[in-house]
Amino acid sequence: MKKTCSKEVTLKLIGILRTPHHAVDNIPVQPVGSQDVGVAELFPEFSEGLKDVDGFSHVMLLFHLHEMKKEVQLIITPFMDNKEHGVFATRSPARPASIGLSTVKVKKVDGNKLYFEGADMLNGSPLIDIKPFFRNVDNRLDAVSGWLEGKDADIASIHRSDDRFIERKAIHNME
Amino acid sequence: MKKTCSKEVTLKLIGILRTPHHAVDNIPVQPVGSQDVGVAELFPEFSEGLKDVDGFSHVMLLFHLHEMKKEVQLIITPFMDNKEHGVFATRSPARPASIGLSTVKVKKVDGNKLYFEGADMLNGSPLIDIKPFFRNVDNRLDAVSGWLEGKDADIASIHRSDDRFIERKAIHNME
Repeated sequence: MKKTCSKEVTLKLIGILRTPHHAVDNIPVQPVGSQDVGVAELFPEFSEGLKDVDGFSHVMLLFHLHEMKKEVQLIITPFMDNKEHGVFATRSPARPASIGLSTVKVKKVDGNKLYFEGADMLNGSPLIDIKPFFRNVDNRLDAVSGWLEGKDADIASIHRSDDRFIERKAIHNME
Repeated sequence: MKKTCSKEVTLKLIGILRTPHHAVDNIPVQPVGSQDVGVAELFPEFSEGLKDVDGFSHVMLLFHLHEMKKEVQLIITPFMDNKEHGVFATRSPARPASIGLSTVKVKKVDGNKLYFEGADMLNGSPLIDIKPFFRNVDNRLDAVSGWLEGKDADIASIHRSDDRFIERKAIHNME
């Protein structure tokens, strides 16, 4: 235990994500194309930090993938391919650091709640950070997407998660 | 201590970022426009996870902002404006969860090392995750950038960090 401590980091949580997804299978694999509405519910002590977030059309949500397998799989077959890749060449939820990143559409801010469109995470996911999406900083129009090239046109319509990466098969009333 | 435990998350670290920036002031405030080269040096046990990363032109690096102020400031004046905003409407490094996100350009992968262009983080920053940039998922061409609109054309040429958010003024030979 002592030896691994320096290879970990402890971060504050700022709230909880409320989404329509109560089980880890059949969730949209990416927020793009998802119209599912979610709520980022901040712990009240952080509400003030939401000032001016509603001026942005999109934010990036960083959250804890709290129901993922504990064993690290470095070579995996992602939802969007049938070939194996290194985990850092995928967005698989089964990663060494169980952290998810979703860019979502801001609907409104009300007190300590940020309502958003594009919920692709499990209900009850612990929220780590909210970062505004900066159009001229975060877009990479010339990006080349490796193994995903030609496979991602149908992300929104076809690809849904399954339970390959989870610890338990069905999760209800989590928190 | 017991009460705050549920409001924290502990994540595995996967490596260390080596960059030319040995002090927290005068760093590019965003990776876009920075030609500074950095190296994501993975702990050897995670090397295998880099397979196929070199097929992607860009990756997102998530890292620990390990030299930031410990006090949470919810209303701050970011580097790119002279007005106050809620911290979640900014990319300020002084956030409740000290986590940084930079989209950088992949140069090459060699063993446990990923060489990249666009280093805007401090040398020695602990690396939390590497996520491939998916062109059709991560771009938001229609994004509106709130208070930043009209202020970000000159990010690359003008804006550099200063020491407003740090705990110590100069940091040398960190790790």
